Amino acid sequence: MRPEERSVDQLREITIETGYTKHPEGSVLITVGDTKVICNATIEERVPPFMRGQGKGWITAEYAMLPRATDQRNIRESSKGKVSGRTMEIQRLIGRSLRAVVDLSKLGERTIWIDCDVIQADGGTRTASITGAFVAMVIALGTLVKKEAIKELPITDYLAAISVGVMPDGEAVLDLQYIEDASAHVDMNIVMTGNGEFVEIQGTGEEATFTPTQLQEMLQLADHGLKEIFQMQKVALGELANHMNQQ
Amino acid sequence: MRPEERSVDQLREITIETGYTKHPEGSVLITVGDTKVICNATIEERVPPFMRGQGKGWITAEYAMLPRATDQRNIRESSKGKVSGRTMEIQRLIGRSLRAVVDLSKLGERTIWIDCDVIQADGGTRTASITGAFVAMVIALGTLVKKEAIKELPITDYLAAISVGVMPDGEAVLDLQYIEDASAHVDMNIVMTGNGEFVEIQGTGEEATFTPTQLQEMLQLADHGLKEIFQMQKVALGELANHMNQQ
Amino acid sequence: MRPEERSVDQLREITIETGYTKHPEGSVLITVGDTKVICNATIEERVPPFMRGQGKGWITAEYAMLPRATDQRNIRESSKGKVSGRTMEIQRLIGRSLRAVVDLSKLGERTIWIDCDVIQADGGTRTASITGAFVAMVIALGTLVKKEAIKELPITDYLAAISVGVMPDGEAVLDLQYIEDASAHVDMNIVMTGNGEFVEIQGTGEEATFTPTQLQEMLQLADHGLKEIFQMQKVALGELANHMNQQ
Amino acid sequence: MRPEERSVDQLREITIETGYTKHPEGSVLITVGDTKVICNATIEERVPPFMRGQGKGWITAEYAMLPRATDQRNIRESSKGKVSGRTMEIQRLIGRSLRAVVDLSKLGERTIWIDCDVIQADGGTRTASITGAFVAMVIALGTLVKKEAIKELPITDYLAAISVGVMPDGEAVLDLQYIEDASAHVDMNIVMTGNGEFVEIQGTGEEATFTPTQLQEMLQLADHGLKEIFQMQKVALGELANHMNQQ
Amino acid sequence: MRPEERSVDQLREITIETGYTKHPEGSVLITVGDTKVICNATIEERVPPFMRGQGKGWITAEYAMLPRATDQRNIRESSKGKVSGRTMEIQRLIGRSLRAVVDLSKLGERTIWIDCDVIQADGGTRTASITGAFVAMVIALGTLVKKEAIKELPITDYLAAISVGVMPDGEAVLDLQYIEDASAHVDMNIVMTGNGEFVEIQGTGEEATFTPTQLQEMLQLADHGLKEIFQMQKVALGELANHMNQQ
Amino acid sequence: MRPEERSVDQLREITIETGYTKHPEGSVLITVGDTKVICNATIEERVPPFMRGQGKGWITAEYAMLPRATDQRNIRESSKGKVSGRTMEIQRLIGRSLRAVVDLSKLGERTIWIDCDVIQADGGTRTASITGAFVAMVIALGTLVKKEAIKELPITDYLAAISVGVMPDGEAVLDLQYIEDASAHVDMNIVMTGNGEFVEIQGTGEEATFTPTQLQEMLQLADHGLKEIFQMQKVALGELANHMNQQ
Repeated sequence: MRPEERSVDQLREITIETGYTKHPEGSVLITVGDTKVICNATIEERVPPFMRGQGKGWITAEYAMLPRATDQRNIRESSKGKVSGRTMEIQRLIGRSLRAVVDLSKLGERTIWIDCDVIQADGGTRTASITGAFVAMVIALGTLVKKEAIKELPITDYLAAISVGVMPDGEAVLDLQYIEDASAHVDMNIVMTGNGEFVEIQGTGEEATFTPTQLQEMLQLADHGLKEIFQMQKVALGELANHMNQQ
Repeated sequence: MRPEERSVDQLREITIETGYTKHPEGSVLITVGDTKVICNATIEERVPPFMRGQGKGWITAEYAMLPRATDQRNIRESSKGKVSGRTMEIQRLIGRSLRAVVDLSKLGERTIWIDCDVIQADGGTRTASITGAFVAMVIALGTLVKKEAIKELPITDYLAAISVGVMPDGEAVLDLQYIEDASAHVDMNIVMTGNGEFVEIQGTGEEATFTPTQLQEMLQLADHGLKEIFQMQKVALGELANHMNQQ
Repeated sequence: MRPEERSVDQLREITIETGYTKHPEGSVLITVGDTKVICNATIEERVPPFMRGQGKGWITAEYAMLPRATDQRNIRESSKGKVSGRTMEIQRLIGRSLRAVVDLSKLGERTIWIDCDVIQADGGTRTASITGAFVAMVIALGTLVKKEAIKELPITDYLAAISVGVMPDGEAVLDLQYIEDASAHVDMNIVMTGNGEFVEIQGTGEEATFTPTQLQEMLQLADHGLKEIFQMQKVALGELANHMNQQ
Repeated sequence: MRPEERSVDQLREITIETGYTKHPEGSVLITVGDTKVICNATIEERVPPFMRGQGKGWITAEYAMLPRATDQRNIRESSKGKVSGRTMEIQRLIGRSLRAVVDLSKLGERTIWIDCDVIQADGGTRTASITGAFVAMVIALGTLVKKEAIKELPITDYLAAISVGVMPDGEAVLDLQYIEDASAHVDMNIVMTGNGEFVEIQGTGEEATFTPTQLQEMLQLADHGLKEIFQMQKVALGELANHMNQQ
Repeated sequence: MRPEERSVDQLREITIETGYTKHPEGSVLITVGDTKVICNATIEERVPPFMRGQGKGWITAEYAMLPRATDQRNIRESSKGKVSGRTMEIQRLIGRSLRAVVDLSKLGERTIWIDCDVIQADGGTRTASITGAFVAMVIALGTLVKKEAIKELPITDYLAAISVGVMPDGEAVLDLQYIEDASAHVDMNIVMTGNGEFVEIQGTGEEATFTPTQLQEMLQLADHGLKEIFQMQKVALGELANHMNQQ
Repeated sequence: MRPEERSVDQLREITIETGYTKHPEGSVLITVGDTKVICNATIEERVPPFMRGQGKGWITAEYAMLPRATDQRNIRESSKGKVSGRTMEIQRLIGRSLRAVVDLSKLGERTIWIDCDVIQADGGTRTASITGAFVAMVIALGTLVKKEAIKELPITDYLAAISVGVMPDGEAVLDLQYIEDASAHVDMNIVMTGNGEFVEIQGTGEEATFTPTQLQEMLQLADHGLKEIFQMQKVALGELANHMNQQ
């Protein structure tokens, strides 16, 4: 039996609060169970040096956890003077995922900075970050449309992510919280678009392996869960969701 | 006239929310106007190497801002690979201030880690951090009392901080928000104990100076404002405030 | 048509040379087409601090490219003073993959260091590294068996990796060389055990997505190619392969 | 009784030697008792990027101690690879203080670099640095006047600094040497202009507090001591002092 | 008696393989006994900022060892985040040596990057690097001549290096392998041009000294050994050697 | 003709002031013409980890220049966050040289830290550092003898260093000042013991070479100059020089 009597294909409670802080062009607080992430999107009116002069935009992401987002305090990465491999992996994943649903040539020579800061962690922080960052990004892009800097939202589809895994008893489960994640044999993160295509699949057995059958079970759970999440993103986007439908 | 028609000796609206996140021993969200800081206190059951074997405790603080806590996005210090001089000054100030009201020998060989993370900035982030961190620290120490690791709160007095300044017209004002701070000739931070003694005075004229008379005006404004803030801390501490009174 | 008239399910020519340099306990030069990687395995008679006293071993990997392994010279990571996110991802992947087929408790409190240094790059360096590192690791473990430090090879199965992808025309292909990799819409790396279970699946659409059908095609190509590679590993291991069969 | 029978309001012996080394535009060796600091001023004919095109100058300071300036050898900050929080605080203080008495728009787009290197430390190194740096800076600016790069010294007033403190017996004292500093309950640094206005007040109780009355006593001691120091600066500046009087 | 019955003035077996990897403009694998170094030369069509606009070229070198090039595994310098003093000394030496035989003004505003990566170490890695790097550099310059970017090889003479030393019995020996190097009292590296002039002499007694007579003996051994090495370089250069003779 | 009409074999004026600062066990200010270096020696009652338990001592050196020791201001290495290759080379040279004349087993498990800080530079800073550091080290060791921690000075001979070079006209000269150094074709540093043996020879042609004849001329000049310098060291050591003679 899962904690809090969740069924294997049941998401935790998810909330997406927009306009969370006042300065960013897009600001979202996403909560997935006890996982809470602030996702802020910033529009910068230039691209990094390696992209200048191509008429295209860029999207880049940074991810961090408050030292006490977790049960044990983590040393602050600014104090260590370097970013861990785990952090780098996550921020590369977030950036790559978002770029898959944005038409960068329609964005113009602008950079969208995504900052995902985990306030409280209970498993699934990277997938919550992607789901929340998508909403923050669309809101930020909406400000560009509003001031007529671009003609329409350069978004090709919805984007969200969820974790799935295989527990020690061999059963595949959806949306692992920390206590499950710690004992799972396989941990897989799926990033998907609104029309059901994959953007990223990362499945890992830590000192374990998984069968092709288990893979298919996990993919189905993810597909099921993500359909629900796309609905929540749509609600969170409000009026902006209509702009997306027209494309 | 000040923004939002505040009088020169008027504080912004202050809220102190306790139990803000679930993992830390003490967790507070303090808001001072539009400035919002998460102050988390962690108890570690050992002291840094230079203090071992003395039977005394230690208190250390770290401070950071989310990249988009401000109007313009700041580069993340973990990405830069080093902590700025400003950050170092602030975290040294927070740690020093808290140590002034804690009886470190009654704390035992423990370290209290204070993490102040600014979610949204509008002036006065370092003084809000001190005020909020004091509450988080007392709550964390309360957990030690509760499980009888220490006999009583090793706190000698309340502690809070506020900013004062001199505006271009020569007038001293209390609790500067960002737009005032940016144009002020003098910026002063006062850290005080509940019985009206100073812990720290830091007054700076940036490309300007101030007279002894202006200094006295600023000290009076701070004294006035801090008396109000001590009351809010008392309310936020609830039952724990009674434990402090008995000492 | 693929370069050099390869069919979509055809591997490049692969060679695995053992005993490549004289100092390491296991030393392999693997070539996959024009990709050449030196894989060295070092046995250290202790584990990292976080694992001491548990009676278990550890496996950790480092990966680097010579500056001129590629067409354009890359800045040396030691000169930059930090390891890139890409390098960290790859070395974490190699270590995790190898740990999946080693019984760490049978290894005893030892660390196996895997060093994968790319001498010449032409696509697929991370998968070649895993395939070569497995052979170097088994040889290094063989020296422990030989001097009777451990009773038998603590290996549970063969391990190898290969890349698959989807080209712009939508076709799935096996073992991408650099020129294919640069234009592919999807890049996927599969790490598998000798009995056909997955250790790791990492599939990424860079500014693109892929369908569930394409995923299945890629999985089949990988399964097909890896079966060939396990045979080459067996040949390269020579006498040691017999020790593996007996388990 | 104070060491060497000094009275509470008595400065240590102070010497200010100009032209100490041959390369800098301004070079001063200041000694305050056994504290010895080399203060060099360099004129650079450009400003940092963030100030370009404003027609204004900039002043920036760096501070360091020789490893054996103190009783115990300190690790060199270049070996540690980073500058400590204490060093950063001090160099920010020196730069800010000097900028308060320079008319940066009359300086033109130039940077004055101040280097304060402590050869021997016995308390009060940061205040000695400010006092000596002011003299080195005026000398360096004098070379600009001499070659008619600027019309007159862009200095608005004299500037000097001194430490005051409260000893364990509650008495306020002027100009603490190291042995006093180590036991003082309060340590305060005052930076003042020739006409008696404050530039910076930094008062700190380390694990202690101070009363408003003690604050006033310290301010009076500082005012008294600084009047003497301004006279010594005037003597050290020689002919240049006349140029200052004319403004 | 020396290991492998070498006489005091006998070189180890040396091979110089050109065209070792496919990407660099010049690529050499040099082996000196069991020491193996990959020397790659890259032509970059610009010079570092401090040399721009002078119409001259630049040559710079980097040196590294694979972690397991030695008997004990060395920590990778990219993991340590900094380059050791030994590495810096060696790469400065290689660059300086090569610049002594190149007419930088005939090179034009180009940089030649030399990368020396030690695959296997058994003493004399820095001198092998210089000897191999010279060949790689000439080959790279040959590609510039071939495509008529420059008129002729801007090389003034051959260049090679060898180590000599004094053993504990006081005898001078040529080309020390690791086991000799470890016990030698004096370690000297000589870099010489084809016409017998010195480019660099570095002789060091580690906790030992050497007499003027021993110095002369070492210089003669080096002169003798280098004459042989120049012949091998000539053979390795093949047709390009003729271009050098014509100058 | 040389600057200041020096003959080719003439040293600049040299002074060696002992007891320069009060804290170090040995403190020397050496001036060689306009080059001024503070050489401090610190005794630490332990050795670095890699030497513990061997009953032997260690000597290590650090070298730095004040930013404005030179005509143009240099960026402080602590600000850059790393030590340059040049600095590393010099501090390794100083340490190695001093170790050649100290009987480390008589020193006991102690470290001597040598700090050479260049106050003013005019050529020859590394050789002045070695010459001055030797005196500071002997004085520091004298304090150990005095308090009977060791029986006698563990010094086997005097040690000093000087630069020689070849000017563009082909003439060898002794003790180059900066203006000569900048145009010299060859720069050589010789470290020698009192009895005329070599400790270190480092000769470099920067974009130039030198003949065996020129080498011999330089060696003779150095031998001549160092004989004078040993006399000055003897005078500077005063009474301690007698202790050295008795060995």
